[in-house]
Amino acid sequence: MTLDLSQYMVRTDLALEAKELAERMHGAPIPGLNEDITEDDGIKVTRLDVLNESASMQIGRVQGHYVTIEVPALRNQDTGLQERVAATFVTEFTGFLDKIGITEDKKVLIVGLGNWNVTPDALGPLVVENALVTRHFYQLAPDQVAPGYREVSAIAPGVLGTTGIESSEIVQSIVERTKPDVIIAIDALASKSLDRLNTTIQIADIGIHPGSGIGNKRRGLTKEILGVPCIAIGVPTVCYASTIVNNTFDLLLKHFDQEHGGAGSGQTKQIMGLITELSEQERLGLVKEVLQPLGHDVIVTPKEIDEFIEDIANIIASGLNASLHKAVNADNVGAYTH
Amino acid sequence: MTLDLSQYMVRTDLALEAKELAERMHGAPIPGLNEDITEDDGIKVTRLDVLNESASMQIGRVQGHYVTIEVPALRNQDTGLQERVAATFVTEFTGFLDKIGITEDKKVLIVGLGNWNVTPDALGPLVVENALVTRHFYQLAPDQVAPGYREVSAIAPGVLGTTGIESSEIVQSIVERTKPDVIIAIDALASKSLDRLNTTIQIADIGIHPGSGIGNKRRGLTKEILGVPCIAIGVPTVCYASTIVNNTFDLLLKHFDQEHGGAGSGQTKQIMGLITELSEQERLGLVKEVLQPLGHDVIVTPKEIDEFIEDIANIIASGLNASLHKAVNADNVGAYTH
Amino acid sequence: MTLDLSQYMVRTDLALEAKELAERMHGAPIPGLNEDITEDDGIKVTRLDVLNESASMQIGRVQGHYVTIEVPALRNQDTGLQERVAATFVTEFTGFLDKIGITEDKKVLIVGLGNWNVTPDALGPLVVENALVTRHFYQLAPDQVAPGYREVSAIAPGVLGTTGIESSEIVQSIVERTKPDVIIAIDALASKSLDRLNTTIQIADIGIHPGSGIGNKRRGLTKEILGVPCIAIGVPTVCYASTIVNNTFDLLLKHFDQEHGGAGSGQTKQIMGLITELSEQERLGLVKEVLQPLGHDVIVTPKEIDEFIEDIANIIASGLNASLHKAVNADNVGAYTH
Amino acid sequence: MTLDLSQYMVRTDLALEAKELAERMHGAPIPGLNEDITEDDGIKVTRLDVLNESASMQIGRVQGHYVTIEVPALRNQDTGLQERVAATFVTEFTGFLDKIGITEDKKVLIVGLGNWNVTPDALGPLVVENALVTRHFYQLAPDQVAPGYREVSAIAPGVLGTTGIESSEIVQSIVERTKPDVIIAIDALASKSLDRLNTTIQIADIGIHPGSGIGNKRRGLTKEILGVPCIAIGVPTVCYASTIVNNTFDLLLKHFDQEHGGAGSGQTKQIMGLITELSEQERLGLVKEVLQPLGHDVIVTPKEIDEFIEDIANIIASGLNASLHKAVNADNVGAYTH
Repeated sequence: MTLDLSQYMVRTDLALEAKELAERMHGAPIPGLNEDITEDDGIKVTRLDVLNESASMQIGRVQGHYVTIEVPALRNQDTGLQERVAATFVTEFTGFLDKIGITEDKKVLIVGLGNWNVTPDALGPLVVENALVTRHFYQLAPDQVAPGYREVSAIAPGVLGTTGIESSEIVQSIVERTKPDVIIAIDALASKSLDRLNTTIQIADIGIHPGSGIGNKRRGLTKEILGVPCIAIGVPTVCYASTIVNNTFDLLLKHFDQEHGGAGSGQTKQIMGLITELSEQERLGLVKEVLQPLGHDVIVTPKEIDEFIEDIANIIASGLNASLHKAVNADNVGAYTH
Repeated sequence: MTLDLSQYMVRTDLALEAKELAERMHGAPIPGLNEDITEDDGIKVTRLDVLNESASMQIGRVQGHYVTIEVPALRNQDTGLQERVAATFVTEFTGFLDKIGITEDKKVLIVGLGNWNVTPDALGPLVVENALVTRHFYQLAPDQVAPGYREVSAIAPGVLGTTGIESSEIVQSIVERTKPDVIIAIDALASKSLDRLNTTIQIADIGIHPGSGIGNKRRGLTKEILGVPCIAIGVPTVCYASTIVNNTFDLLLKHFDQEHGGAGSGQTKQIMGLITELSEQERLGLVKEVLQPLGHDVIVTPKEIDEFIEDIANIIASGLNASLHKAVNADNVGAYTH
Repeated sequence: MTLDLSQYMVRTDLALEAKELAERMHGAPIPGLNEDITEDDGIKVTRLDVLNESASMQIGRVQGHYVTIEVPALRNQDTGLQERVAATFVTEFTGFLDKIGITEDKKVLIVGLGNWNVTPDALGPLVVENALVTRHFYQLAPDQVAPGYREVSAIAPGVLGTTGIESSEIVQSIVERTKPDVIIAIDALASKSLDRLNTTIQIADIGIHPGSGIGNKRRGLTKEILGVPCIAIGVPTVCYASTIVNNTFDLLLKHFDQEHGGAGSGQTKQIMGLITELSEQERLGLVKEVLQPLGHDVIVTPKEIDEFIEDIANIIASGLNASLHKAVNADNVGAYTH
Repeated sequence: MTLDLSQYMVRTDLALEAKELAERMHGAPIPGLNEDITEDDGIKVTRLDVLNESASMQIGRVQGHYVTIEVPALRNQDTGLQERVAATFVTEFTGFLDKIGITEDKKVLIVGLGNWNVTPDALGPLVVENALVTRHFYQLAPDQVAPGYREVSAIAPGVLGTTGIESSEIVQSIVERTKPDVIIAIDALASKSLDRLNTTIQIADIGIHPGSGIGNKRRGLTKEILGVPCIAIGVPTVCYASTIVNNTFDLLLKHFDQEHGGAGSGQTKQIMGLITELSEQERLGLVKEVLQPLGHDVIVTPKEIDEFIEDIANIIASGLNASLHKAVNADNVGAYTH
């Protein structure tokens, strides 16, 4: 789990949020960004390309391609919806591979980051468990592998606290030996927004960039380090108590603004005080300042996390299996996951 | 898990909080309350007796005996501390049984409320799994049971959503047939305070009183219903997002009061606005009003819940085993739990 | 798990085996038995009715209706086959309910016997976890339940060693209170034959009859005890080491008979010795005599038991859901199981 | 799990069995073997050194040091006994490290072979989960690590079917990068003897040698391959059905020999037939010949495997923690395992 340890910063892990934030501040569309949004019965897909260095700097996101699948109702555990999300994932991920030039002959290494024994952090290992791996067949008898498959391997490297070794070091050493053409890394994220918990999947070809805060000398999984492209699939599964508080402040502000004739009417400020004049970042800093010394800035996850994690892991694993192997399709995809 | 569904109410599940709240409003000690507090190196024990109807009404808690063990550092997973908490539990629970007249010959039925498959709600079933049950030996050959034991049975009745039957109906029917002398019910609670999550154990001889909100026709586990006394052991393991927000408001108020020369200085009000004039209850109502329509008043639990639940279940199970059976002591208590 | 503790006896838990055995000894079809066998691409279904007391005595099985689904390849974990077995289960179980007169308005209590924490014994609890229960909706607002459902509740009573209470006592007391019209009890069985492990499902309207051996005062789940019919669904998941040895002796005998011109050629006896002259029962007695004092008559289960149990529990749970509720069908049955 | 796929061979994985077998055939002690046996209240420890190539060839075991801890009663789940076994493990493992020259400054990589999701194969991953790893502290701030510890890392590489990569390839690539001085590999074994299941622990400085059968191109974990010594800790947790049958034949033979005046009296042969004249190997071949075509040579594990695996993993993990870190001792060893 990539916890952003950088204090006092409203850093969003999701590119589409960063873009919105930047455009709000900028007051106009930012050149060098290409955005395409489709929405279908509760499933919103945003495809965002950060095309040049200038756009990258303005939104504070690495240059690359981002696809975000947002499904606010995903926490309702509706099987029909889950199947539609899985189908959307297949379409989007297949398109994504095409777009960034990962052809059907490319060898894939799936990396499931996180910890088996901490439920909200078990997403990566669960996906690995259900991924359809084939590399050993290609190693043993490449001629005998049926058409419609590609060479896929998978690893759950564990977490630093359990192994004593950085995940990135483990992955790097396996990459050097097994020579995959592309890495797909799955990770549970800390959310910057309560409503994204277990409802959003982000796909991006930018790898894993560890936070830059103190105590975080992890080296990340990027093309620079690994020598091959790394696609990151991230799902927010936890958030800080302070995130919840900060989100609620926002909602309260909007609530009073609406009730009292719009922002700037002065009413909201009367009700909520000078706090309304703080930037979101300053407010979060204030909340953290109060919560942290008491040990109250706890990282939390929804009560139903056991099922949420299992559901999303299934969506991603079956989605990857169908995207990576042409021979796997809607009719047989269930056969490869548990 | 007993979730308090009664909306817009700062109902605390813990008697010691209710007493504090009442005395603050009352401005003086309340007659009919007997309180005894000891503190030992990070473990605070509060023994509170609610002696008469008048005191009961004033603090809004059923007449009875309450013991609360508070261990703020319990979330740090320090094994030494856990062992000391288990020892404290044995001392307090043994004393509690004495006080309410449950002698060594009384037959016990342990009831583990909650759901195996929802980690923060699995406390009860986990305690049952590790309880030392003996009833079957007494049924088979009562003469051959070694001294130092008593008749104990245990049941995890499951939850309404999985069984279609109220836990209380299941327990009632088993009580009618097996005729225990006393029930000990273990339940995970929704906390009214972020800092109590997985750090507090309450023992009370008042049974389980389900919330009185809509949709909550559960009948509870009380002496009136069961015909025998019911001791409730509760541990807060989840809380609402709105609880976190409300707790933080309090901390912010205190923070500004301290910074600016005490409550009533006017400064805090300037910073925090009219919201400071709301009662805690009104404020919580406001927060819920904003969060609930958006589906954001999520019930959350700490990220590390898997280990927390296991640790506390072990403390309670080994504590019960040593309290209920004289033959079980510090040297062999581990033999009965996993 | 109903372990047959009756020593030195080739007792088979499966009626179709008892019938074969009896007819072999009898040398002719037994009157009062009605058998109907169909086979479809690896799934063999035997419907056996034991119609009168005389037939019952001759095959040593309680009068009643038995359906056995045998799928030798079920251990291969082929998802397609599993789905076909689930469909077969629905057809057969629906027919079975019809045959014994359980109409669509009858209220059902599903009982999942066994132990959560012992994988090969977790079948019953796993089925309960995935059963679609509805009783609470009927209790709360019977008018508002959509058509196509019936009243179903479910309980996993635990095992004697964990609860100190006989499962049958727990079920009996719940039956008295909740008044279902029929019980469906799911249990993992000890197999009398290695090849039946996790490949056979027996449905019978005879309830659960505990073994009559020493130490086995369990009272069973039968119409006599419960007052309502009890359908038992059993799956062999474990067997004794002695069962494996005895099965292999048989195979060796057949092997040598085939090689050397049929039984009675004298050759087999020369190779296998006087042991060939023992009855199956005597031979099993001998094997147990040798293994037991050394603690070697271990109860074993296949190495892959974790997945086998999950697969079969899914087949039975989804099969029950579709059989009991008309509104559940092939398209949505997956929505109710995990 | 290292399943020996080499057909029709009584290959024992345990050196002490190989030695016995060889000496029985040889009729005299074999030079170049050093054996030292101690026995203490149900715990038998055999220390066997295979000192030269000639001895190695005669017993068919790699030259090296072997310690075997045999505890027939370990399956009884007696906590007291488990603690004594853990203490014995510490003494023996510490002595073993001394003997083979692994001093306190040597860096260790613990490798937990096997599969999380297959209970009898989860021993290795469970040990890794409970191992006290420290490498990251040494990497971050070597000066600040308290005395009494050494640099330990740990990895559970997964199994070929889940990763598509040989465990040995994964370990090799991590060794190349992290440069440990010694590997400790934990593996669940297929037993050649029913009574060894979950009762025997073998420690040997010979690494992991995969079977040489068809389909088994795994490369092993040996000093030759890894460049550093590899200590293997193996526990038999499964066996073939054919192993059970063959063991029972032996017991039957002994049984009749004893009854009828010793081996060679002719009586046993009369009872058991020509089969008595087969060598153990021939007999096993015969049994496999009969069972395999029917798919009956199932690999089995005791019914209680969930608890057995957890207990032995705890013994080994706490034993390793105390052996590798001087600062960990009997009083605090529990603090590092779950």
